[in-house]
Amino acid sequence: MVKNKKPMGELTLVESIRRMARRASAGRHGLELGIGDDCAIFEPSAGEELLFTTDMLIEGRHFLPNTHSPRDLGWKALARGLSDIAAMGGIPRFCLVSLAVADWADRAFVDGFYRGLLSLASETGTRLAGGDLARAGRLFCDIVVCGAAPRGTALRRGTARAGDVLYVSGALGGSALGLERGRGPAWHRHLRPTPRLALGQLLRTRLHATAAMDLSDGLSLDLHRLAQASGLRAEIETPPIYPGASLEQALHGGEDYELLFTDAAGRRVPAKMAGVRLTEIGRVTGGRKKLLRDANGSRGELMERGWEHFRR
Amino acid sequence: MVKNKKPMGELTLVESIRRMARRASAGRHGLELGIGDDCAIFEPSAGEELLFTTDMLIEGRHFLPNTHSPRDLGWKALARGLSDIAAMGGIPRFCLVSLAVADWADRAFVDGFYRGLLSLASETGTRLAGGDLARAGRLFCDIVVCGAAPRGTALRRGTARAGDVLYVSGALGGSALGLERGRGPAWHRHLRPTPRLALGQLLRTRLHATAAMDLSDGLSLDLHRLAQASGLRAEIETPPIYPGASLEQALHGGEDYELLFTDAAGRRVPAKMAGVRLTEIGRVTGGRKKLLRDANGSRGELMERGWEHFRR
Repeated sequence: MVKNKKPMGELTLVESIRRMARRASAGRHGLELGIGDDCAIFEPSAGEELLFTTDMLIEGRHFLPNTHSPRDLGWKALARGLSDIAAMGGIPRFCLVSLAVADWADRAFVDGFYRGLLSLASETGTRLAGGDLARAGRLFCDIVVCGAAPRGTALRRGTARAGDVLYVSGALGGSALGLERGRGPAWHRHLRPTPRLALGQLLRTRLHATAAMDLSDGLSLDLHRLAQASGLRAEIETPPIYPGASLEQALHGGEDYELLFTDAAGRRVPAKMAGVRLTEIGRVTGGRKKLLRDANGSRGELMERGWEHFRR
Repeated sequence: MVKNKKPMGELTLVESIRRMARRASAGRHGLELGIGDDCAIFEPSAGEELLFTTDMLIEGRHFLPNTHSPRDLGWKALARGLSDIAAMGGIPRFCLVSLAVADWADRAFVDGFYRGLLSLASETGTRLAGGDLARAGRLFCDIVVCGAAPRGTALRRGTARAGDVLYVSGALGGSALGLERGRGPAWHRHLRPTPRLALGQLLRTRLHATAAMDLSDGLSLDLHRLAQASGLRAEIETPPIYPGASLEQALHGGEDYELLFTDAAGRRVPAKMAGVRLTEIGRVTGGRKKLLRDANGSRGELMERGWEHFRR
């Protein structure tokens, strides 16, 4: 279509994104100056600490252009960052988006990307404060999300104590199942993950979880990270499995964006919070190995096998 | 060399970068938790506003691997972001670095990149607070730099007033000349630009500049942006030219990373500040066109022709 082929001048493109961002966001939340100057200006609130996370989304590594629509990509780019904010119990404040537009992508693609991103931004109260635009052979996106929490309260992954109970939200393996099937609700879950923001905030304010992180690279690898950061080992039973997914997918599949957290033994954790099921899956203890107990109670060592970029 | 071919596990690579970052940075500057958790945690100081800028550095677009050493690339990635902080008179606080490592790059490359980046970070008091790592076909870097200024004092580009005098720091066209020659001091200037941080802070605190921005895409385009953001036009004389560079390079060449600023007519601006020459180059006035006066006083319209990614 000729309409899609109109030239993308950087100034007009930035102006168009700025207009979309303005429509998508209500209220200021400390954002003094957004897109268009050398820097975005943010005025922090007194007594808050700020949380920052960055996430890349790379064509051919994290997605293929023929499986994700531009709106899905924009949504997912932001969802991944928001999931990190959720993991620390943060309240989203703003995001910065750097987008290298692939040579194959036209103006309609760029519009769709920002529309998808801004629909999730609008739902979650995240302002698009700025970013960078360039051309590249392949699509490349890097997103920074800033969240906030009262000073000293953000949940961390390295603060679990020996004897704490391990929990996960939701069911695992859905995203891996979706990627395998390419259709149905699991596929939708893969394309448009829901960051557990409300749950994360409740873990911080109500449950006072002792440690938390999000499951982006698979339970086995992320559990290893939480245990290692806390100087402990973990012992888990079979986790809740997404309907139709395999145990393999639940243990090692990435991109579920559920929360993994610990709480003191003896603390009552409800079966559901913020509409999401919470399941006890094991404990963190002293020692060195992660163990997986099967249904018969026999034990085996759980090797971390999730998604790691630099393992060849 | 075999040494360079050791496998890059993400966990060990992140640990190695964390150690380098720890050595490079003294003092905390509000950074509570850096590399290794879901988010970095930053505690802002009371009464400060925070400045955020993002900059991409893409193989084949912004550099070629055979012209820039890994250390040059790391330096430049941070220098570009710091130049935006300088433009607003900010004090650097921390940076977040997302790096997609090209398939051709080995562990020595990644180490060199972070060493170059951290040497400038250390010089300028910028903490490396976190980031993201991935593999990609081509090298891709996105950097976010956070700076701070007392609330309400950051310099902006859209606040020039009709009648204000235009100034630039240093001499222009050096980076374009360096790119053409591929050697000598101009080439070094292209590879390792110096962000004008001390000057930017003095423009804010001493000169109370009415508007400022950095020259990243060439004077003609950046002047257009400043004038447009302020709802004004600009009238300039020949700017100071880097020795050996052409007028073309000084007007339209990118990556000089000098500062362009305005100040009220009648305010005394010293010939040098923070060791950098300051030159009056014209005025901003009401009206619609940017003009360039040549040495004979005749006027012509200056078209913006600097570096714009989306002009094809």
